[in-house]
Amino acid sequence: MARRQRGSSPTLSDVARHAGVSLATASRAINGSSTRTVGEDLAERVREAARELGYAPDANAQAMARGATQTIGVVVHDLTDPYFAAIADGMATAAREGRLFMTLATTGNNIDALSDVVSSLDSMRVRAIILVGARWKDDDLADTLGAAAGRYINRGGRLVTIGMELPGMDGVIVDNAKGSAQLAEHLFTLGYRRPLVLVGPVRHSTAAARSSAFVDRMAELGVEVDESHQISSDLTRGGGEVAMRLALESGLDFDVVVATSDVMALGALHEARRSGVRIPEDAGLTGFGDITSLRDVQPGLTTVRVPTDRLATLALDLALNGPGDGTGSQVVSVTPVVRDSTPPRT
Amino acid sequence: MARRQRGSSPTLSDVARHAGVSLATASRAINGSSTRTVGEDLAERVREAARELGYAPDANAQAMARGATQTIGVVVHDLTDPYFAAIADGMATAAREGRLFMTLATTGNNIDALSDVVSSLDSMRVRAIILVGARWKDDDLADTLGAAAGRYINRGGRLVTIGMELPGMDGVIVDNAKGSAQLAEHLFTLGYRRPLVLVGPVRHSTAAARSSAFVDRMAELGVEVDESHQISSDLTRGGGEVAMRLALESGLDFDVVVATSDVMALGALHEARRSGVRIPEDAGLTGFGDITSLRDVQPGLTTVRVPTDRLATLALDLALNGPGDGTGSQVVSVTPVVRDSTPPRT
Repeated sequence: MARRQRGSSPTLSDVARHAGVSLATASRAINGSSTRTVGEDLAERVREAARELGYAPDANAQAMARGATQTIGVVVHDLTDPYFAAIADGMATAAREGRLFMTLATTGNNIDALSDVVSSLDSMRVRAIILVGARWKDDDLADTLGAAAGRYINRGGRLVTIGMELPGMDGVIVDNAKGSAQLAEHLFTLGYRRPLVLVGPVRHSTAAARSSAFVDRMAELGVEVDESHQISSDLTRGGGEVAMRLALESGLDFDVVVATSDVMALGALHEARRSGVRIPEDAGLTGFGDITSLRDVQPGLTTVRVPTDRLATLALDLALNGPGDGTGSQVVSVTPVVRDSTPPRT
Repeated sequence: MARRQRGSSPTLSDVARHAGVSLATASRAINGSSTRTVGEDLAERVREAARELGYAPDANAQAMARGATQTIGVVVHDLTDPYFAAIADGMATAAREGRLFMTLATTGNNIDALSDVVSSLDSMRVRAIILVGARWKDDDLADTLGAAAGRYINRGGRLVTIGMELPGMDGVIVDNAKGSAQLAEHLFTLGYRRPLVLVGPVRHSTAAARSSAFVDRMAELGVEVDESHQISSDLTRGGGEVAMRLALESGLDFDVVVATSDVMALGALHEARRSGVRIPEDAGLTGFGDITSLRDVQPGLTTVRVPTDRLATLALDLALNGPGDGTGSQVVSVTPVVRDSTPPRT
């Protein structure tokens, strides 16, 4: 791509000439320097000249001079999932308030792309990278991601995770297990005894943490959830539809459907309606996340609320000010919200 | 912020030494140059040395050397609005496929922030800026935004809009008026004669285009929509709630509620339910946009489908390859989708 001629835009040399200083001094005054500083009087004279000429600083030159950009790299799976959109929106707001740029990358369904994205953001010399997502039980992925992250950190970068854990790196950790256990207690108290659990993908650690904590707490309360009542599928709306269809076609007996995410629950709701199963009259339904679009769904969905704005703010703070060695990780609790999709069962 | 010592990471000087060339030659081979090129043999020798040493190029140095980054700046109001999230997701996918970075900025409700955001992206030397949003009838805003955009373009930048028009700049234009007129025809054919129009904010050109085209087409069909039946409020879910409450408290008579956006329609639906008005038994309801979360709303909402992925792809293509002078603008048509919220009225 050829950029057009810069026309009459003033250059840094023009500013230096106008201020009567050397180009190097003008650069240090405007762009900063990691090694040498300029006296305040001289710096002000240069800035004054820049203002008079209408010179616009080059953020890339500033980045090179200072050794880091004012840009944060944020990586999410998919912005059409309201959970990730909410976190990205929180990040964008926090970045704007901190006068930072946010470079946003999506990986789509290709989780193997994660390490490439980290390398790209590394080449951009972003000030910090925030990886939003799930842990996957995949040694190859962990190895390549770990290597890319290691190169970035070795060069002075900072990397923080949300909802996933990487060894030696600070993360904002969602207390999925506790939230699921509390959800189990609520459902038990409401009289539910035959849960069908949509457990999500087998390799997906977040999904596994949620579903196994639910099953374990139910067992402690005296309700055994048989393997046949734990169906694995994608952690998406389509995954919820498929799992629900399987359960109905197999003629499984259940009084509540416990989905591992809200979008899965919405897929299950869609499939239940299509098959003539009434929610909540025939069976209760729960999700996980409390995405905002739930407020327009009827019946109101019982779920576990994940405070996405808080995750975003905490992660950005960790990225900018945390120890950066894994000792700064913070655990965020989540809370069940009981709505009309799980009325008392008698 | 101080970056940590770069430790053992190889520098470009190391690469130059290893390849037996000057630092300037190594830089031209690795980072490119807008003025001088390096012979292919020499360039390959430098790249080989970089590979052997594990040198990671600095995208900012490349940007400075070439005069432009591989970064696209995208500006939206708010990622929690599914319409903007869908466009941003389409942009992220298209950027990834084109091996570009996407810097995403939100302006929140503060539309005056637009010109500041453009100046910030300018200082980052992004290759192109894509402004997603609405036209506002505001001369001051247009002036400051026009000035910031002008400075950026004068420096060789490219600016493309989606859903708004700026003089002299290419844009992807949504044919709101035609979509609204077609929606009016559908509703007329279905037997609706007493529409209540939630027109959105008075200064908002997109909202105005949608609602006035609807009212005009209805008038041509012989249905006059009185001023009292055109209620203005925010183009948000809350705005839909407020407008609906006003209409119900005023005892207005209507057989269909025509909202200017999907989220407004969802707010109106919420308020109608709260007030005991049944949709669609007591009145029909329509939105605009066809956001994905509509598939989980009952009754299915009649709306006008805006193809957000296509808007994103077209805008990125215009930003990279368009004429950049306003002659490349493209109009995208939108299509009514009739669902259960507007059954035939007899």
